[in-house]
Amino acid sequence: MTLWLNGTFFAKDEARIDPTDRGFLLGDGVFETMAVRDRKIAFADLHFDRLIRGADTLGIEIPYTIKELTAAITSLLRKAGDTTQDRTSVRLTLTRGTGPRGLVPSPSAKPTILITCASTPVPKESVSAIVATGRRNEFSPTANLKTLTYLDQILARQEAASAGADDAILLNTNGKVTCATAANLFLWDSNTLITPPLLDGCLDGTVRRTILEIASQSGIAIFEESVTPSTLANVESAFLTNSLIGLQPLHEIADRPLKTHALQEKLRDAFDQAERKSCEL
Amino acid sequence: MTLWLNGTFFAKDEARIDPTDRGFLLGDGVFETMAVRDRKIAFADLHFDRLIRGADTLGIEIPYTIKELTAAITSLLRKAGDTTQDRTSVRLTLTRGTGPRGLVPSPSAKPTILITCASTPVPKESVSAIVATGRRNEFSPTANLKTLTYLDQILARQEAASAGADDAILLNTNGKVTCATAANLFLWDSNTLITPPLLDGCLDGTVRRTILEIASQSGIAIFEESVTPSTLANVESAFLTNSLIGLQPLHEIADRPLKTHALQEKLRDAFDQAERKSCEL
Repeated sequence: MTLWLNGTFFAKDEARIDPTDRGFLLGDGVFETMAVRDRKIAFADLHFDRLIRGADTLGIEIPYTIKELTAAITSLLRKAGDTTQDRTSVRLTLTRGTGPRGLVPSPSAKPTILITCASTPVPKESVSAIVATGRRNEFSPTANLKTLTYLDQILARQEAASAGADDAILLNTNGKVTCATAANLFLWDSNTLITPPLLDGCLDGTVRRTILEIASQSGIAIFEESVTPSTLANVESAFLTNSLIGLQPLHEIADRPLKTHALQEKLRDAFDQAERKSCEL
Repeated sequence: MTLWLNGTFFAKDEARIDPTDRGFLLGDGVFETMAVRDRKIAFADLHFDRLIRGADTLGIEIPYTIKELTAAITSLLRKAGDTTQDRTSVRLTLTRGTGPRGLVPSPSAKPTILITCASTPVPKESVSAIVATGRRNEFSPTANLKTLTYLDQILARQEAASAGADDAILLNTNGKVTCATAANLFLWDSNTLITPPLLDGCLDGTVRRTILEIASQSGIAIFEESVTPSTLANVESAFLTNSLIGLQPLHEIADRPLKTHALQEKLRDAFDQAERKSCEL
């Protein structure tokens, strides 16, 4: 498998991340995972927009233009052609680059950009989730960003696996529902959709943004609204979203069975259409 | 400079972290930074104890015994001999190793261990600190551990630098004082010492542990006790601790000048003695 690292294509086994890279030592970076449809990035604008916001928050200057990064991804997908299945995804990782010991970055640090592609397994039709014991920090300056600091989410996913569940939903430190370990959460309240607001500390997901935009086109009212554990404990239908799973119904939360909502398929169709349209841009 | 990576010594420029290492991609690991005195690790027991607790929490099996890791560090320090100054430190980084895309680790993942040494700058006599706007998450399962997820602390340090301060003190999500970006915090209340408890989400620092143990030997009463911002706003003397700075007085918190406590030197002497003793083991 080929990858792109700081402007050069490498065979995966030949690419080298420096042992002083602050992404490796301190989680000092952000990333995007993007679905690819017919060799085109779905919702590229939303991904690059979040990448730029993340880099701005961290104070990292992206050393390439979005046009150059898009061209790199296109070339990478072409090179990976033979091994690329229908369902492919691209991950772009941006770190502050190498640096001396300690938290203070070197003023001359040159950011690291790694782009990889991989075939994506077909997502399960539906999944189960527990409510994790660990909490998501809504007071973090990076709460809504896709940073490299995924350890707490990894531990929540391990907790889910130990309980025989697929995923875990995290509350924030104030006890409000936020999102799953790597996906946003939507609840059906009769024919209305509710998703936790960014201020409660959920990831600012690209699919979440898209659903917020397209739901009304399907005649579905949608609200960003704080969700309590008791609302979660009584919800009848819910689903998760991210770039790779799209819209994925939950068939169980905390051992309580859920059903797929009657409007779920209509919403998914609208999303699929928006996704296809985004690839034509 | 030489380093040790997974059992082999490399020149720094030749060592290669794999681009699929979960330390690089997800912050999936822990580390220790250890002071070296006369080519011996200070407080090695405390560091290895925390390393093991961290690995246990993450579910990573350390592929070497502590004896083997100690031998590796000793050899590394010997090889680095010429370039090693009086003040040297060793960093040991443990990650879950390489893995496929996504949060779920490969069952066959082989952990990565990287050991580096570096000369340590002489710490400032005293430092200034602001109170950061971001909060530390006391509800995280990794709150007390030294994990690779240091991004929020990096941002707090940047906030401090923008304000012309050396460091930042973080409150937890409940508004209690925890620690600085890479150091624990002790406050003098007349001749008594107070440090925030682990339950409030501070790092379980090795120097913090040592101070808790040795203060009473110097006739200083010490308590682990929640600290409010108003206590912090009225404190007259305080200091930071970590392995590399030892005990470092604060001369200013949030633009308010502090003075060095009359017992500070006595406590520092006791700490230096404990540090020397730990190297003899």
